[in-house]
Amino acid sequence: MKVYNANILFTKERSHFEVLENGYVAVDADGRVTGVASDLASLGADASERQNEPDDGTEIIDFGDRLLIPAMNDLHVHAAQYRNQGIAMDLELLPWLQNYTFPEETKYADTVYAERMYRRFVHDLWRAGTMRTCTFASIHTESTRILMRLFQEAGMGALVGKVGMNRNCPENLSESVEEMVQGYESLIEEFNGPDALVRPIITPRFIPSCTPEMLRACGELAAKYQLHVQSHLSENKDEIAQVKILEPDSTCYGDAYDRYGLFGQTPTVMAHCVFTEQEEMELMKRRGVMVAHCPTSNLNVTTGIAPIRQFLDKGLRVGFGSDISGGHSLSIFQMMIYAIQMSKLHYQRDHARSFLTLSETFWMATKSAGSFFGQVGSFEPGYEFDALVIDDHELNHDNYSLLERLERFIYLGDDRQIAHRFCRGKEIPEPSIFCIFAE
Amino acid sequence: MKVYNANILFTKERSHFEVLENGYVAVDADGRVTGVASDLASLGADASERQNEPDDGTEIIDFGDRLLIPAMNDLHVHAAQYRNQGIAMDLELLPWLQNYTFPEETKYADTVYAERMYRRFVHDLWRAGTMRTCTFASIHTESTRILMRLFQEAGMGALVGKVGMNRNCPENLSESVEEMVQGYESLIEEFNGPDALVRPIITPRFIPSCTPEMLRACGELAAKYQLHVQSHLSENKDEIAQVKILEPDSTCYGDAYDRYGLFGQTPTVMAHCVFTEQEEMELMKRRGVMVAHCPTSNLNVTTGIAPIRQFLDKGLRVGFGSDISGGHSLSIFQMMIYAIQMSKLHYQRDHARSFLTLSETFWMATKSAGSFFGQVGSFEPGYEFDALVIDDHELNHDNYSLLERLERFIYLGDDRQIAHRFCRGKEIPEPSIFCIFAE
Repeated sequence: MKVYNANILFTKERSHFEVLENGYVAVDADGRVTGVASDLASLGADASERQNEPDDGTEIIDFGDRLLIPAMNDLHVHAAQYRNQGIAMDLELLPWLQNYTFPEETKYADTVYAERMYRRFVHDLWRAGTMRTCTFASIHTESTRILMRLFQEAGMGALVGKVGMNRNCPENLSESVEEMVQGYESLIEEFNGPDALVRPIITPRFIPSCTPEMLRACGELAAKYQLHVQSHLSENKDEIAQVKILEPDSTCYGDAYDRYGLFGQTPTVMAHCVFTEQEEMELMKRRGVMVAHCPTSNLNVTTGIAPIRQFLDKGLRVGFGSDISGGHSLSIFQMMIYAIQMSKLHYQRDHARSFLTLSETFWMATKSAGSFFGQVGSFEPGYEFDALVIDDHELNHDNYSLLERLERFIYLGDDRQIAHRFCRGKEIPEPSIFCIFAE
Repeated sequence: MKVYNANILFTKERSHFEVLENGYVAVDADGRVTGVASDLASLGADASERQNEPDDGTEIIDFGDRLLIPAMNDLHVHAAQYRNQGIAMDLELLPWLQNYTFPEETKYADTVYAERMYRRFVHDLWRAGTMRTCTFASIHTESTRILMRLFQEAGMGALVGKVGMNRNCPENLSESVEEMVQGYESLIEEFNGPDALVRPIITPRFIPSCTPEMLRACGELAAKYQLHVQSHLSENKDEIAQVKILEPDSTCYGDAYDRYGLFGQTPTVMAHCVFTEQEEMELMKRRGVMVAHCPTSNLNVTTGIAPIRQFLDKGLRVGFGSDISGGHSLSIFQMMIYAIQMSKLHYQRDHARSFLTLSETFWMATKSAGSFFGQVGSFEPGYEFDALVIDDHELNHDNYSLLERLERFIYLGDDRQIAHRFCRGKEIPEPSIFCIFAE
């Protein structure tokens, strides 16, 4: 058992922070929180309930005046677009896809290139404090395998999607349904088990990129192997109109996925949902589908602003996605700021829609998004200990309160303040960017 | 004469970047650019036109593969709100002003406190690569003097405003017109001359905070000492309505300033202009009034989005303001990103309003904003050499073009990539945060 001592902040409920000044959190050998308290004595009471377990000694790790918070979770990002982060931002969607995005993804047929880029990607997620990632790779099975091995090597949690696509895309980014299924099964063979930190996730790119046969095969794979599902939903109006033509029987875009078993039959996350309306919301609510809100991407790609306040009011599950390379920042802390700011634009137009607060966006980034990976994102007993230790002494040059220190770290800070990172109870060292796998 | 060798990027025109791979810029002993060229020989031709000047030897400084760009200019920021950067962001405007902003500004009656905070402020501007700043201080003359001395000590350019206010504000943030004038004259005595790098700027807080007598005295001071003017304009609709009541004869908010000689009679910058309409635009155009666009502040304070494309189309002068503590970031590079993103929201609603490009926002931050401080913000001959050397090797891990390297630095980078900073031809070392002035 390990006990961490620091100023502890987390969001059990989205309405407010739990703040334990000089508090303690106990973590067992499996990496799960067994108790969190303001003093060691109260923590002991929790621990004594577990007296039947073998006593392997309790180690107390003192982080002093630093902040201890849950680690970040990224629910939507394109690993195979990592080279394009922060370039071509002046382009419209179509030339961006044709001249930058698709040509870049084709490069991942080359596993040497893939390892080089994916190592930077995993390294930079680590740097940003993101310990769990739900990511698109590319159609290429072997490059996807490399990305999964890199997450495994790093000790960081990931749901990694070999991308399914076989229509409306360049020929060298298309594969047959059989190839797709075989590729998935070979990845499932290597990475599986419900407790695995790194697992495949079924990833049809989106309805317009996949034939009904491919969508059906995706749904069958998800059901057969009980795998999570990710895709894009209602990002822009042209796309929604196209889906209506391709799937004329569907009552809404989400319903089109639903008909193929890709909408909550297994845990599902859908990126964007900018134009999701009542019917789609209802279906998402019923199916427990998670929204990956990607505010920077929605701004950069001139999409619009997702109605997050309505989603929360309706009880939908919502987390954040950095959506590189539509988004330009890997930092989920930046997503919190942008989400608050975008909600303030909604509020400015309609005061009935109150803007998002810091605790709400922190909860979205941690406890809400974390639930997609299991019991992740909080310090309540039973949760896996995914945590960041924040050394904010440079920002804390006056008598700031603990909440003000956290707010300043989020608004002004960056990876320089992240002193330690934990995933499932283990401290995660800096992943290497030196290539060794591919030849 | 010094000649700097690097990859040089700047915006002579707002439509595109000048890009000189492995180029040269020559700077004379006064800190002014004498030539910029792709090779030394062409630079010599420029230099030979200056052969009557004494030849003090030419030193070549080689920055290798790094990027050399003009330094940043911040046209609107509240130095006396620096402690509040990144806190209280969940509050509405009124409780934010009453519980955070005004109480904070009153602390600057204490020069010891002022020196401590102002040293961090100047240090962090340096860190962000901002070499010229137009800033509000507080009503306190002696604290304002300290801030001006700190800019002088650092060697960084600044227009610093002792704030004028005598109505609709806490009593301890109000002073009489006579005190205001005396305070200004004592600062003018110490810091003056048109070539001074640090000068006072006339700073009525805004119309609602100043009686007609104070506004008149401000206009007279500006005219008598030929000082620049700064204030707030058309930030929100309540404020505009209040100005209409206070100054019933004015035809628009800008016209209210104009009647007191505070709208372009001397160089004038107005922050925000979110709700500026045609008549105000026309007046600003005629008077050459500069807009300080503060996109982060406008989002954080739930103000709205300023119509920057319209301002540019009309030929208005526009630059950026970080507007701490309404804004949360001191980085003018961040202002470029936000300005592009906000313009994309306008574009998304109305495709006739094309969104801002990187070269346009770079030009706004450098050549356009720089013009408020003199010939600043470009590497054309005659311009003062204000520059940043960007060491982006960590971001440049693939075969990116020079423009892509600049774009990645702006979107992904931070102060870690700023290797050298120059203001008026001198390299500026890191300013000290250790207090020595105040007792």
